[in-house]
Amino acid sequence: MRAYAPRVKTGKTFMGSQVAKIVESKNSKFPEGTYIVGEYGWKTHTISNGKGTVSGLPSAWIIPDIGNLPHSLALGVLGMPGNTAYFGLLELCQPKAGETVIVTGAAGAVGSHVGQIAKIKGCRTVGVAGSDEKGKWLVDELGFDHFINYKKDDLRSKIKEFAPYDCYFDNVGGEISSMIMAYMSLYGRISVCGAISGYNDTTVPKATIVQYPLLFNQLRMEGFVVQRWVDRWFEGVEQNKKWINEGKLKYKETVTHGFENMYAAFADMLRGGNTGKAIVKV
Amino acid sequence: MRAYAPRVKTGKTFMGSQVAKIVESKNSKFPEGTYIVGEYGWKTHTISNGKGTVSGLPSAWIIPDIGNLPHSLALGVLGMPGNTAYFGLLELCQPKAGETVIVTGAAGAVGSHVGQIAKIKGCRTVGVAGSDEKGKWLVDELGFDHFINYKKDDLRSKIKEFAPYDCYFDNVGGEISSMIMAYMSLYGRISVCGAISGYNDTTVPKATIVQYPLLFNQLRMEGFVVQRWVDRWFEGVEQNKKWINEGKLKYKETVTHGFENMYAAFADMLRGGNTGKAIVKV
Repeated sequence: MRAYAPRVKTGKTFMGSQVAKIVESKNSKFPEGTYIVGEYGWKTHTISNGKGTVSGLPSAWIIPDIGNLPHSLALGVLGMPGNTAYFGLLELCQPKAGETVIVTGAAGAVGSHVGQIAKIKGCRTVGVAGSDEKGKWLVDELGFDHFINYKKDDLRSKIKEFAPYDCYFDNVGGEISSMIMAYMSLYGRISVCGAISGYNDTTVPKATIVQYPLLFNQLRMEGFVVQRWVDRWFEGVEQNKKWINEGKLKYKETVTHGFENMYAAFADMLRGGNTGKAIVKV
Repeated sequence: MRAYAPRVKTGKTFMGSQVAKIVESKNSKFPEGTYIVGEYGWKTHTISNGKGTVSGLPSAWIIPDIGNLPHSLALGVLGMPGNTAYFGLLELCQPKAGETVIVTGAAGAVGSHVGQIAKIKGCRTVGVAGSDEKGKWLVDELGFDHFINYKKDDLRSKIKEFAPYDCYFDNVGGEISSMIMAYMSLYGRISVCGAISGYNDTTVPKATIVQYPLLFNQLRMEGFVVQRWVDRWFEGVEQNKKWINEGKLKYKETVTHGFENMYAAFADMLRGGNTGKAIVKV
């Protein structure tokens, strides 16, 4: 959302996914009382033709049977972020048991999920985030093997300590990413999911070039948006649900209440105030 | 060679490939009179056990039957640079007919070869090099569709003019590469072969980060060294020879005479003084 924000004109509805309950319907595919996920942006009520995407995400979709799990998970671990972690890690990094996976933005909705899938696949997992409290959650509760506090630790020596990395799931871009790539192993894979480190810059930032590590260790680096796997959307949702029900996948939500607090919640998330998925309940 | 140079201690033989004639032999695999390619570095005579690689390139190999073609081609179009172009472009960029391929360092041994393979595969081809004389050779003799003079042209507007690019064969790294990536198409592929733009810097240079174009167009970027395809070495040599004999693949050599001029020839190549493969004849 932050990366695309400059393209949203003042006066237009800002983009965003929501879980919505259908309160009135003339469309038999979407009966009243159904809970759906739609790309309706920042608003409380929507009149929809059942399609209506703001940012190119899949059309509105009915939340499948998720038992007693809360509907809000369809915005997180059982929705777009969950599928981003699932497909972005497994398809582009192809982690193998025994390999080491490092993820930046590790305490976010996607990052915390990526690390847990890596563990499920038998990998050694290193998370990078910005507070020791987040680190404690990653290691003690989610099973990450190591944690790096990028705001406090001597970054290069910590990155070196847990190296080499076979897979890097990149949520931040910029200098941290260049540094991590210098400590990867032969034929390492980098999945580029976000570049939050530069979202507030008015021009695209500069950092140490990545061509040298790519050359020396024949690394492969690939960017993606999760819509690429829209045809396999419910494969991701079902697998993540299965892992939750088996107790292998944990999640956290940072919930803000009230439509009027949406901007504050969004800005706080970008400053790293959230752990897990940032949700606004209206 | 330039990238690895800092690792070569003073007093050690500098690395380099040579075509050598076997003048004396106790090894029946390498009879007297045979012409081989070996990684013997900068010297005129070598005592070898038939292996002996300086930089990790394949063991000494006997030049296959190349008809009336000069042996020196085994250092260029029928050797390491030729295979670099062949595998690096076809395996990592996977260009399809009708796509647009851009290559930097286009007038060098590898770049000029890459552009011609792209043409053979039915692609529109854009070459970036540093003089109009080189550009004329690329367009008039090798069949490149367009030429960009990075030293003289308004680089961004020229890159934009011939965009979008499906494939980018990167010989230079740095800011030019970041700029080209901003004008690639969805699912574009980047083969990283070299980063000559930064070889003279004492620290790894910085440039505009590549994560944004990788994200927006879901680009894939991969570094390689040609030894990766050592098992298919002669497939590359044979195909390149076939294309030469069919008149589809042209080459040029910039030949310097005399062992004492090796350093000057090497430095001149790095400054862009050569067109095609730089050879020193001893």
